[in-house]
Amino acid sequence: MRIKTSVEGIRDQLISWRRDFHRYAESGFREIRTASLVAAYLEKLGYEVSAGKEVMKKEYRMGVPDVKILHSHKEWALQNGANKKWLEKVADGFTGVVGILHTHKPGPVIAYRFDMDALEIQEDLTEEHLPFREGFSSVNDGMMHACGHDGHTSIGLGLATLLQENKESLAGTIKLIFQPAEEGTRGAKSMVEAGIVDDTDYFIATHLGAGVALGEVVTGQTGFLATTKLDVVYRGKAAHAGGNPEKGRNALMVASSAVLGLYGIPRHSAGASRVNVGVLQAGSGRNVIPNQALLKIETRGATSEINEYMEEKAIAVMKGAAAMYQVDVDIEIVGSAKSGTPSPELVEVLAEIAEHSPYVKKVTRFSEKPFGSEDATFFMERVQSKNGQATYMIIGTTLAAGHHHERFDYDEEVLSIAVDVLFRSAMTILSR
Amino acid sequence: MRIKTSVEGIRDQLISWRRDFHRYAESGFREIRTASLVAAYLEKLGYEVSAGKEVMKKEYRMGVPDVKILHSHKEWALQNGANKKWLEKVADGFTGVVGILHTHKPGPVIAYRFDMDALEIQEDLTEEHLPFREGFSSVNDGMMHACGHDGHTSIGLGLATLLQENKESLAGTIKLIFQPAEEGTRGAKSMVEAGIVDDTDYFIATHLGAGVALGEVVTGQTGFLATTKLDVVYRGKAAHAGGNPEKGRNALMVASSAVLGLYGIPRHSAGASRVNVGVLQAGSGRNVIPNQALLKIETRGATSEINEYMEEKAIAVMKGAAAMYQVDVDIEIVGSAKSGTPSPELVEVLAEIAEHSPYVKKVTRFSEKPFGSEDATFFMERVQSKNGQATYMIIGTTLAAGHHHERFDYDEEVLSIAVDVLFRSAMTILSR
Amino acid sequence: MRIKTSVEGIRDQLISWRRDFHRYAESGFREIRTASLVAAYLEKLGYEVSAGKEVMKKEYRMGVPDVKILHSHKEWALQNGANKKWLEKVADGFTGVVGILHTHKPGPVIAYRFDMDALEIQEDLTEEHLPFREGFSSVNDGMMHACGHDGHTSIGLGLATLLQENKESLAGTIKLIFQPAEEGTRGAKSMVEAGIVDDTDYFIATHLGAGVALGEVVTGQTGFLATTKLDVVYRGKAAHAGGNPEKGRNALMVASSAVLGLYGIPRHSAGASRVNVGVLQAGSGRNVIPNQALLKIETRGATSEINEYMEEKAIAVMKGAAAMYQVDVDIEIVGSAKSGTPSPELVEVLAEIAEHSPYVKKVTRFSEKPFGSEDATFFMERVQSKNGQATYMIIGTTLAAGHHHERFDYDEEVLSIAVDVLFRSAMTILSR
Amino acid sequence: MRIKTSVEGIRDQLISWRRDFHRYAESGFREIRTASLVAAYLEKLGYEVSAGKEVMKKEYRMGVPDVKILHSHKEWALQNGANKKWLEKVADGFTGVVGILHTHKPGPVIAYRFDMDALEIQEDLTEEHLPFREGFSSVNDGMMHACGHDGHTSIGLGLATLLQENKESLAGTIKLIFQPAEEGTRGAKSMVEAGIVDDTDYFIATHLGAGVALGEVVTGQTGFLATTKLDVVYRGKAAHAGGNPEKGRNALMVASSAVLGLYGIPRHSAGASRVNVGVLQAGSGRNVIPNQALLKIETRGATSEINEYMEEKAIAVMKGAAAMYQVDVDIEIVGSAKSGTPSPELVEVLAEIAEHSPYVKKVTRFSEKPFGSEDATFFMERVQSKNGQATYMIIGTTLAAGHHHERFDYDEEVLSIAVDVLFRSAMTILSR
Repeated sequence: MRIKTSVEGIRDQLISWRRDFHRYAESGFREIRTASLVAAYLEKLGYEVSAGKEVMKKEYRMGVPDVKILHSHKEWALQNGANKKWLEKVADGFTGVVGILHTHKPGPVIAYRFDMDALEIQEDLTEEHLPFREGFSSVNDGMMHACGHDGHTSIGLGLATLLQENKESLAGTIKLIFQPAEEGTRGAKSMVEAGIVDDTDYFIATHLGAGVALGEVVTGQTGFLATTKLDVVYRGKAAHAGGNPEKGRNALMVASSAVLGLYGIPRHSAGASRVNVGVLQAGSGRNVIPNQALLKIETRGATSEINEYMEEKAIAVMKGAAAMYQVDVDIEIVGSAKSGTPSPELVEVLAEIAEHSPYVKKVTRFSEKPFGSEDATFFMERVQSKNGQATYMIIGTTLAAGHHHERFDYDEEVLSIAVDVLFRSAMTILSR
Repeated sequence: MRIKTSVEGIRDQLISWRRDFHRYAESGFREIRTASLVAAYLEKLGYEVSAGKEVMKKEYRMGVPDVKILHSHKEWALQNGANKKWLEKVADGFTGVVGILHTHKPGPVIAYRFDMDALEIQEDLTEEHLPFREGFSSVNDGMMHACGHDGHTSIGLGLATLLQENKESLAGTIKLIFQPAEEGTRGAKSMVEAGIVDDTDYFIATHLGAGVALGEVVTGQTGFLATTKLDVVYRGKAAHAGGNPEKGRNALMVASSAVLGLYGIPRHSAGASRVNVGVLQAGSGRNVIPNQALLKIETRGATSEINEYMEEKAIAVMKGAAAMYQVDVDIEIVGSAKSGTPSPELVEVLAEIAEHSPYVKKVTRFSEKPFGSEDATFFMERVQSKNGQATYMIIGTTLAAGHHHERFDYDEEVLSIAVDVLFRSAMTILSR
Repeated sequence: MRIKTSVEGIRDQLISWRRDFHRYAESGFREIRTASLVAAYLEKLGYEVSAGKEVMKKEYRMGVPDVKILHSHKEWALQNGANKKWLEKVADGFTGVVGILHTHKPGPVIAYRFDMDALEIQEDLTEEHLPFREGFSSVNDGMMHACGHDGHTSIGLGLATLLQENKESLAGTIKLIFQPAEEGTRGAKSMVEAGIVDDTDYFIATHLGAGVALGEVVTGQTGFLATTKLDVVYRGKAAHAGGNPEKGRNALMVASSAVLGLYGIPRHSAGASRVNVGVLQAGSGRNVIPNQALLKIETRGATSEINEYMEEKAIAVMKGAAAMYQVDVDIEIVGSAKSGTPSPELVEVLAEIAEHSPYVKKVTRFSEKPFGSEDATFFMERVQSKNGQATYMIIGTTLAAGHHHERFDYDEEVLSIAVDVLFRSAMTILSR
Repeated sequence: MRIKTSVEGIRDQLISWRRDFHRYAESGFREIRTASLVAAYLEKLGYEVSAGKEVMKKEYRMGVPDVKILHSHKEWALQNGANKKWLEKVADGFTGVVGILHTHKPGPVIAYRFDMDALEIQEDLTEEHLPFREGFSSVNDGMMHACGHDGHTSIGLGLATLLQENKESLAGTIKLIFQPAEEGTRGAKSMVEAGIVDDTDYFIATHLGAGVALGEVVTGQTGFLATTKLDVVYRGKAAHAGGNPEKGRNALMVASSAVLGLYGIPRHSAGASRVNVGVLQAGSGRNVIPNQALLKIETRGATSEINEYMEEKAIAVMKGAAAMYQVDVDIEIVGSAKSGTPSPELVEVLAEIAEHSPYVKKVTRFSEKPFGSEDATFFMERVQSKNGQATYMIIGTTLAAGHHHERFDYDEEVLSIAVDVLFRSAMTILSR
């Protein structure tokens, strides 16, 4: 293998990209500036670039913000450096981008997934927080890259750069998938349903941090909980609580019954099951029978089957509660993810590759540490269902504070490590 | 008015009847011995006697005991002095009797209602309780005349006697209605639906005691709560609580949700509303997900409309709770009564009549004291709906303990007072 | 009685005052501009004026807004025409004013109550709404005089004017009480506890509208529901719902248990009882065990005793629910009112007076129409407990929309009618 | 090792004992006949026999039946062949027996646990059920050896026989523990707390069946769920549901709140957690506010810590629910068991021993198959805490129906297999 360029040459560029994305943090389905810049850069490198509705199936998006919010954010993106050519294509909640590098030599298809979205968290704006101190904290109030997706996007662009420069050493096809709205597990399914990994032989998703030390790489993360996110609205009928209580249909009371019912769904003997009502907002005035209630709910399961059991039971509970008091109910699925198991052969191959990276001090093949939920599992499931191999890697780094914390930050050295390992993986797998 | 005989002549007989009925107490729809003796006596007096299915419409009976219980009780009745001729006719849960006295002179139809059933209460068997001391406490374990219906039946027979003896002074028609299963408000509706008061101009139901003093008569009791009695069975699916909790469908949990839901039915602004879950029995073993639950429920309302509101809401709650956990539900109405308002004109007429009775010291026209529920209200509603007049009278007496108490007993002087007042009412109304 | 001036002379002034108060609507405990203008005007007329802490006992105020809100509103008041002399005295949530007119002749003490607060409702700003059309709709977003207290304040000032001008015809003492925060029943108790009606022989509270027609006056409103308003905060412990659900203490679940428990408080046989959870807000993120929940609750009762029963039971329910899941609970009473019965003698006297008013077409002595809750009942109870007489009058008027509606408005003719009747009442009672 | 006798010689005796115990099935703490016969036989063999209060600490027994039941069962035992000498000692709920075989040579202490109690299940009495067909079905209505403890007791007596006959080949001490009330996990703790295994180096509990095939032996069963069994009684106050609902304190409503609260205890992230309300019985009459409720509850956990978490949370829920409606609560622990992990060294030793038995076709060292709860875990924990080794073995057999089924029965060949393996274990361990 003849390597024309290496990660050393783009180290500063990786940090620069990361800080730019951090500064212009955009939450799920609003990654308009980010996606437009990604698409423009990939195009400049010579990738075949698809975006928006070409790579996302509309009806499989979940938890998409209101159209007004999307429109006003498009304006913001335009005024904050978005690429004008790509802007319209990635607007309106279609912020996915796929870049394809054709080697024009026969060989397998390998795909890498990078997520781009920020969280709706207010970033810490004190000197103790490095991004503020260094001047790249989020300019968007209430949005923050507190999970590292700014780094993921940067890694993707870095990988794109190196692969393009070494294109002649490769055989087969490379797909770089830039996914929106991983937070809340809302974006992956629409890209999977658009068919973008149906031809993929190898699929690799990557996350930085996650409690793994700088220099360590996990090539097969397991322990994903399958999950479903639901927004539930009960609509009853208001009435004066003193004057005519019998005329009301009490949405708050129904919501309360549903809450107790949900937490009471029987445990599943096959493994961990979860349900949570994270938010309940109901009622208007103290003296009015509440006519509306909103619940934000999630179910989880150690396996997709257990989560399906939880989701099915939860829906029955919520509908039954509505029937108890003749209240209307509207249940919307606003996110979901599968459980997922890395393909052992790919885990082993990647482990051996990682062991050759000069940046990597320790390689762990399988980590069973619980990981929460991830919608990369939709990609994994699809690829494996078509006899491809798939895995989920962790590239360790030092964290200033835990994921989703207002002072989340990480050692940017991880960017180079990740690019190096991923670059090596393509170079190895596509030259075998 | 020429009176051939008076209540004085039957005073001892009234007491003797009452003590016999008390001793052979029979609960609702099992009044086989009682009814057969009533029918035989009325027949002997020359009344036209109808009984059983002739005076009760099968499908409107509520809360009828199991057929096995009815059969074994028939045996008991036979061995304890029931009249053999009438036995079969009043068996199998058709224990109503109607005696008609035709004067063969034109005149109005007047009907009197007497209820015959005992309660399922264990009578006190100590020397402090007069019926025990005097040797006429119930021979039926767990059944007791603790509400005075033994007296009501006795009064009915006394009235029959006097009316028959004074038949020539009367014009019109007299109906003496002996009703089963007033307790639990289960028996009246089936007699009403059989049409037995459809031709009635005046309807008078009577109760002794009820907190009214000996010598006082109330000619228009109001304050009845309309009511519905419901038996509810939830049927789910058992499963081992340790091994496979997810395979169960928990009837006990559904019942608990229903209980909280029922008590939470909104109060009605138009007047008193009530709901109670008096009994809940669920589950088998500690380590088994319960697959069955039984609830005994009642709703009430200051008006029939409020009770209908409560019943409708209760049924929605119970069905919704079942849907929450995919459990089957079976709801059976086992009793019901209406609210009811005495006809003012009849109340006044009876008050004037009562004021002439030498036994009566005080007459109250309308008493608004709350009275609980009574299915005589079905008769009242039917008669009034056909432009007749109806009322509910209280004949006061001294009580040894409250109604439904294991030491309930009363001053038997009330029997003569009641017969005298009722006899005068017929003599007055039918000779006007 | 020699009347120097009459209501005709101040008709325009009444309307002008009312429109000014309407335009500068101030909600409970924020009536700084209003109160300062009232105090200044009464002082100018020669009344002995007390205000703020002199007439309100600090610890008996309920539901007082946060100090920051009060401070910023003081600034607003200053910039919008508040009287500078009185501003500080009525700031910081002490917006009550009492004006005393001493006749220096022996005689009884008569007190009139006027409430000054607006509601937190967004006023309709369309041409269909007269106050907008005529240019006096509220300049305060989200605050609106939608109950008529602007008129009450205006009536109070009008009454003050006429009484001052006719002072020589009077004997005894007149107290004009301008009360804050009647909405939510939060302000009266603190004035009562300050002792301002402890010497009062006659107490008259007045409300305009309330479904009574223009020209009709009710001199004895009954049907008040006693009430308690409670804000409840549950504080548990957050935890990741997927990762460590057992580490959370779920405030939302506790709140839901409390809700079902509250609606299930047994009905009271002595009369109407009510409970409502009008607002429930709990939780932060979907995947976090909720650590906080806020409930806005009210209880009511046909009598003060029934409301005390409801309040006591509600507090037990809310504390027990907290104990179920080891969550902390903070219960604050933010409002309360008594039931209340007008003194029959005063009702009669006022009825006779009203019958003499040329403005009044119809006088009703007692109206049992349900009226909701009113904290004037605290004044009534105190006066009656010291052998004084008290009542609550309704002065009818035509309404554009119901009370508390965003298009509430009324025929301003009611202002003159009210002043006339109240003026006559003082002239009559204090010259007897 | 010189073996004087073998299991072949007692094969018929084992079956005869088993059928006798099956026929005279006695449920927990009532094993008076069984225990007296066991004690007498061990004594006859020359064992040092302790029983009753000598081997059970009174206050650590759980779920002991009422003293009346125990007394009447003692009468039954006497009339059905109990040993008179031992009868009194094992009466009154102290049915444990320990036989010690002293070899009078230095060596380790080895203890074997056999449980003796039947279940409260009605045995099938049809020809299809072998015990009925062969004439040894239970003579005790509603009691049945449906779990195999009849066989366990028989195995214990067989083992005692062989060990006594080969005493001279042994060094050290043998304890045969015959435990009452394993069902409901009620009996072991009182024997442990009496100190009977405090000196034990090796502890072996045995169960037949459990889904393991005839000829297979598991020498280290894991997967026990720790458990706590609780009986809960709520005591409120009755009141007439129509007349004075506010005077009641509703125990049924509290129980329902507790049920929902219990099922809602958060799942534990460290492993399986369980809670079940297997039985709820509440209330008396339909029209009475229920003043009493009984719940039969169990908690479980994959580890003792998880079960302690569940128990602690459950108790908080049950007390909090009582506080919500001011009802009294009485919580009694009527059973408990620990989780438990076999000592690997002993598991290996026994596996090697079993592999030498001619009766054994297959040996499994560790089985992780879930096993429910077992109070032999108390013995295991105690022995291990004092640096001894402990395990739980399964001796496979063919089952006619599952454990706790009314047609449970097994291939009696298992009796010989078990005795052979256990006999070999003593011969090996005590001669090492």
